[in-house]
Amino acid sequence: MTEQNWRLAIKWNNDGLIPVIAQDSDTGTVLMMAWMNEDALSETIAKQEAVYWSRSRSRLWHKGETSGHVQKVKDILLDCDGDTLLLKVEQIGGIACHTGRENCFFRSLDAQEWKINTPVKKDPKDIYG
Amino acid sequence: MTEQNWRLAIKWNNDGLIPVIAQDSDTGTVLMMAWMNEDALSETIAKQEAVYWSRSRSRLWHKGETSGHVQKVKDILLDCDGDTLLLKVEQIGGIACHTGRENCFFRSLDAQEWKINTPVKKDPKDIYG
Repeated sequence: MTEQNWRLAIKWNNDGLIPVIAQDSDTGTVLMMAWMNEDALSETIAKQEAVYWSRSRSRLWHKGETSGHVQKVKDILLDCDGDTLLLKVEQIGGIACHTGRENCFFRSLDAQEWKINTPVKKDPKDIYG
Repeated sequence: MTEQNWRLAIKWNNDGLIPVIAQDSDTGTVLMMAWMNEDALSETIAKQEAVYWSRSRSRLWHKGETSGHVQKVKDILLDCDGDTLLLKVEQIGGIACHTGRENCFFRSLDAQEWKINTPVKKDPKDIYG
């Protein structure tokens, strides 16, 4: 397929976005879920580092632009329906979450409580200054 | 937290849904992404098997109800923002995708083409009859 055609395989939602799962390519840990629009995906491919669309800030978000914790892209995968991307990445600094944890899924449902199962690796104050 | 409170930690989107990543609890393979509404999550917890909200069919979807390829729930995790769930599961039958593959992310972007990187394990005709 030409460049034009591979883009057509992607089904953007009504806001022009697609959910993107970021997974550590070495450990298999699911790091986070974020969103891309077409520009974000183009930037991700160009930089070979994850660039998302920040819905809260309504702008492109080069992950790690402040913290240095960029995500080096190892593989970009599309699901059967064409409506979800899986990004396999090398997580620089070993910290994907703004809370200073390795990954964002640090709350586990246990007897009707969310229990925190992942320690903070670095104080966010030391990450973001 | 009481049952009431743990539910309040979840941020449903404007359609009352939350994206759910299903990951094989043994291998770490990301199997698929689907959606839950509050009823689907309640059913998932009650059955300890994944029950999603099918957006295309507008009904609860007990994954594997036709194929037998149910997903036994091992862990339910919530991300830092409360807007994505990660379900760690045992994938019965080893097939999560309706195409008969282990997982739905079988297309990999390679030189501006989607290349299929995962074989079909079982013909869908033999799964769904």
